[in-house]
Amino acid sequence: MPAPLDTARLIADRRPGYSLPAPFYLSPEVFRQDLRLIFGRHWLYVGVEPDIPEPGDFFTVEIGNDSIIIVRDDDLAIRAFHNVCRHRGARLRAPGSGIVGNLVCPYHQWTYNLRGELIQNQHAGEGFDRCKFSLKPVHIESLAGLLFICLAQTPPEGFAAMRASLEPYIAPHQIANTKVAFQKDIIEAGNWKLTMENNRECYHCTANHPELTVPLMEFGFGYQSSPDNVAQMANFEELLARQHVGWTECGLPSAEIERLDEITGFRAVRLPIARAGESHTVDTKVACRKLLGDLHRADLGGLSVWTQPNSWHHFMSDHIVSFSVLPISADRTLLRTRWLVHKDAQEDVDYSLDKLTSVWTATNDQDGSLVERAHAGVSSGAYEPGPYSPFTEGLVEKFCEWYLDRLATGLESDEQ
Amino acid sequence: MPAPLDTARLIADRRPGYSLPAPFYLSPEVFRQDLRLIFGRHWLYVGVEPDIPEPGDFFTVEIGNDSIIIVRDDDLAIRAFHNVCRHRGARLRAPGSGIVGNLVCPYHQWTYNLRGELIQNQHAGEGFDRCKFSLKPVHIESLAGLLFICLAQTPPEGFAAMRASLEPYIAPHQIANTKVAFQKDIIEAGNWKLTMENNRECYHCTANHPELTVPLMEFGFGYQSSPDNVAQMANFEELLARQHVGWTECGLPSAEIERLDEITGFRAVRLPIARAGESHTVDTKVACRKLLGDLHRADLGGLSVWTQPNSWHHFMSDHIVSFSVLPISADRTLLRTRWLVHKDAQEDVDYSLDKLTSVWTATNDQDGSLVERAHAGVSSGAYEPGPYSPFTEGLVEKFCEWYLDRLATGLESDEQ
Amino acid sequence: MPAPLDTARLIADRRPGYSLPAPFYLSPEVFRQDLRLIFGRHWLYVGVEPDIPEPGDFFTVEIGNDSIIIVRDDDLAIRAFHNVCRHRGARLRAPGSGIVGNLVCPYHQWTYNLRGELIQNQHAGEGFDRCKFSLKPVHIESLAGLLFICLAQTPPEGFAAMRASLEPYIAPHQIANTKVAFQKDIIEAGNWKLTMENNRECYHCTANHPELTVPLMEFGFGYQSSPDNVAQMANFEELLARQHVGWTECGLPSAEIERLDEITGFRAVRLPIARAGESHTVDTKVACRKLLGDLHRADLGGLSVWTQPNSWHHFMSDHIVSFSVLPISADRTLLRTRWLVHKDAQEDVDYSLDKLTSVWTATNDQDGSLVERAHAGVSSGAYEPGPYSPFTEGLVEKFCEWYLDRLATGLESDEQ
Repeated sequence: MPAPLDTARLIADRRPGYSLPAPFYLSPEVFRQDLRLIFGRHWLYVGVEPDIPEPGDFFTVEIGNDSIIIVRDDDLAIRAFHNVCRHRGARLRAPGSGIVGNLVCPYHQWTYNLRGELIQNQHAGEGFDRCKFSLKPVHIESLAGLLFICLAQTPPEGFAAMRASLEPYIAPHQIANTKVAFQKDIIEAGNWKLTMENNRECYHCTANHPELTVPLMEFGFGYQSSPDNVAQMANFEELLARQHVGWTECGLPSAEIERLDEITGFRAVRLPIARAGESHTVDTKVACRKLLGDLHRADLGGLSVWTQPNSWHHFMSDHIVSFSVLPISADRTLLRTRWLVHKDAQEDVDYSLDKLTSVWTATNDQDGSLVERAHAGVSSGAYEPGPYSPFTEGLVEKFCEWYLDRLATGLESDEQ
Repeated sequence: MPAPLDTARLIADRRPGYSLPAPFYLSPEVFRQDLRLIFGRHWLYVGVEPDIPEPGDFFTVEIGNDSIIIVRDDDLAIRAFHNVCRHRGARLRAPGSGIVGNLVCPYHQWTYNLRGELIQNQHAGEGFDRCKFSLKPVHIESLAGLLFICLAQTPPEGFAAMRASLEPYIAPHQIANTKVAFQKDIIEAGNWKLTMENNRECYHCTANHPELTVPLMEFGFGYQSSPDNVAQMANFEELLARQHVGWTECGLPSAEIERLDEITGFRAVRLPIARAGESHTVDTKVACRKLLGDLHRADLGGLSVWTQPNSWHHFMSDHIVSFSVLPISADRTLLRTRWLVHKDAQEDVDYSLDKLTSVWTATNDQDGSLVERAHAGVSSGAYEPGPYSPFTEGLVEKFCEWYLDRLATGLESDEQ
Repeated sequence: MPAPLDTARLIADRRPGYSLPAPFYLSPEVFRQDLRLIFGRHWLYVGVEPDIPEPGDFFTVEIGNDSIIIVRDDDLAIRAFHNVCRHRGARLRAPGSGIVGNLVCPYHQWTYNLRGELIQNQHAGEGFDRCKFSLKPVHIESLAGLLFICLAQTPPEGFAAMRASLEPYIAPHQIANTKVAFQKDIIEAGNWKLTMENNRECYHCTANHPELTVPLMEFGFGYQSSPDNVAQMANFEELLARQHVGWTECGLPSAEIERLDEITGFRAVRLPIARAGESHTVDTKVACRKLLGDLHRADLGGLSVWTQPNSWHHFMSDHIVSFSVLPISADRTLLRTRWLVHKDAQEDVDYSLDKLTSVWTATNDQDGSLVERAHAGVSSGAYEPGPYSPFTEGLVEKFCEWYLDRLATGLESDEQ
């Protein structure tokens, strides 16, 4: 029987600027703490309003052993409930999506309306008070169409501030006027933090992402200057400055926001597309000829948004790619990717799924392999934390700092 | 490292009339206690005499990590042994059934007769005393042809009383003169107690069992009276009273026996088949035209028998369906179903397997889905125990009460 | 929550001459101790020099969660490193084999030469000291071409003594002048010690290995004399004595060496091939017509070598079969088998793979089934240790004694 893990001590002993000690990636005990203190107490990105445009539309999201139903009510309000019948606990709906009038448990037909109220059940007897058996609600908020839930009784501070900051950036892409053209789930064979760390740097891009590095400019993600690249970097900075002026003229905020260290942490920046391109596609041209919202130009670069602990997004003129990270176990992580286009765009007329999705489908697969390789390696007894690059892995360090701080705060609150 | 689970405290705190707290369904520790204190110390239904009609016939049954060989000796006695060689512990027989002369371990040919005595082994040396290396016996009893084993050194009280009560009900169906026409194993993705709870109510039948509810009268399994069904319920009661008279005239005991709260708990009742039918088939008519035992009428309703902790059975005029629940892990349960017909009945002449098995094959699959759905739901952190219906889930509550009482008693005996 | 396992107490209480108590085979805690104290602190057989004949050739070996790269450097030296990048811990190479110039981590292109030195990495900043980030070395030694690694900082004593003893026996087969004609991995569903115990006796051979017992003489592996076999045993002893004389004349040491109880324990003996045969093949004739080394006769019997804790080998005149046991989990074990022939032998000219490999492929599969059967049996609560035969299972007992002594020593060193 190994000694109980002292997570607080592990946090205190962690060397800043270095990858995390192995138990953070491997320990089932830390994983339970992650679920309880990180995923249980922060705002989680889980989907978009266009997942459920009409009354009765719903989808579920699974986080650890929890399952949450997110549903559009008849008054168009979006609500979230635990996917657990109040009778004997059966799941109301299998994981997935669909359309419902009421939420009817298939086991014994306990029936809830879309406000979560129990409105029908048989054989309960005279004194049974249905009011006491509503579905358990989950906090849900829309940020310009991005849906965030919080499983805690009392959500943490900061959502309003995040919305205030990000809404002007995201709003021009009008998520409400998009549809989900494609969604793909992959399961990565690694800890969710390795998935997040992999997302927070592009140091690995050149060697691993031949498709992504066509439209993506790595210089936007941190670089060490050297005699070899000093001219390129200067060019990039000049281009960036020029483009920011243009974007501002178009009414598109583009300056970097970096508030990753807040409880509800986030970051946003608009960056040019490489090769004077337009979008995250194999030829850098738009994948959908019907542009988003009221945008009239295709060459508007890409707005990238990151939130703590579990999402990132790229908004182009023609489409949006949106990523949600959902932990399954200490060594399994679901990456759910949605591609959004204008809701009136027609497949095979305005866009082809293949062009729309090929860059990020390939990139996700490549990243999945890297995460698996990283997880296998840190599982070795010989692993010891190594140094993050101060130039290219600064955002990885910020993710780790946020994570450790939030975990430590959670553990402290347990003790009180 | 989570705090050790205090099962005794969980038992004491459980709210009567409500489904069990989550650890009873999920905790590997409770599962080990279930194996040790419930399955290790009570009479378990595992099969029928017709599984092993001839000398040398055997079958195995797996309970947790244990495997037991049940064999018919040359003197026709039925014996049970742990399926573990006394040399280096190898399994004597792979799970399944067959015919043997002696039990020979395939590893080093240690050879046991069907009384479990070691009668041959090589290279043991001069002073080796074979008497000390008999197979470890397991208690086994036949109740009118139903085989029950007990893994404890000293079985609990109550088997004789159960036999005295049930034998007159079961005997007319003459299990000894049947054969196993079909056996099917399914693995349900849930805790064994969810399998049992699901069996102990028919509240879920109407919406989930379109095949079963053709022959089965739900009124026999508890119902809340309402203006809608008061006339139907009165009709049912009247029918039942009338049939009890008829069954008594045929020499078939039919009054309800309800002793589910005893250590060796059980229940029996004979109920009419719906639609003035005869058997558990899609058209309610007999599946086998050769009736069981000395029965001369097909329309004798169905005798249902339940035993704690792991079985139920339906005896009709033409066939018997018999169910054995065997836990695999906290979240996996084997349901083994046998269909018995008269031993002289010929397949495709007197009965077709399809008609014989279709109702309960479909019903088992439906129940398996419900158990999986229930297990998934109670795994959620949002699950809290909900109320059983006093009208339709009284037997579920009785199962839970029996289980908790037996578990508490076992835990207390540990402390002494 | 079960009480913590007291392995030291289990060791002290073990009854000599009997199979091990169940926790040694089943407990995940003992398995972790096995990895740490047995596999982490002793010399492990992992492969042969002909796996990596040329500069840049490498193969990996996985032991528990560890992965080690074994590589031939440009100076022909053989080196071993942990397969873990010093940056963020990613596995440098997926499990398997291949050819490299340098070892380049695919994640961020950290580049190591074949001495394990970090020679290239980008974006590290000015003060970065590459000397501090060499790959972690693993001790490796060649014993006449058999490669042994030790994961401990300081290897245990005894390797030099083992080499001095075994080299004269093995050298005539000239491993350096062989090639790996075939390699096969099988995963046995049992604890690694059951794999080893199975290897250390031939009591099970007659009934389980119809192919192997054609060339193998069981009398060489221990036998209880009896009126039935006394003449056969005398014949065998006479044959053995006669052959030892002949082997000595050929310059082949053949006397039994038995030092299995040393920290770096081993055993060797040359035995005749049955039926006046030559090799471990279905017809007992050589599988490869090009003999090994400078051997000029085919009928040289078989040199068998065993090492603690994880290998055995058979050297014939025409080929070598070599076995490496690698634990995966408490109930899963990898058995990796290599067949070696003269490096100049041509497939389908000098040998056919089928004849070369058929005896041991069949034998391994049979042994895998036995190990699975043994593991299933000892998992039963009814298992208790049984007696080893003093005639046929003496080497099993020696393996167990070595294992328990080494484990006890390791546990004691923990406490100091």
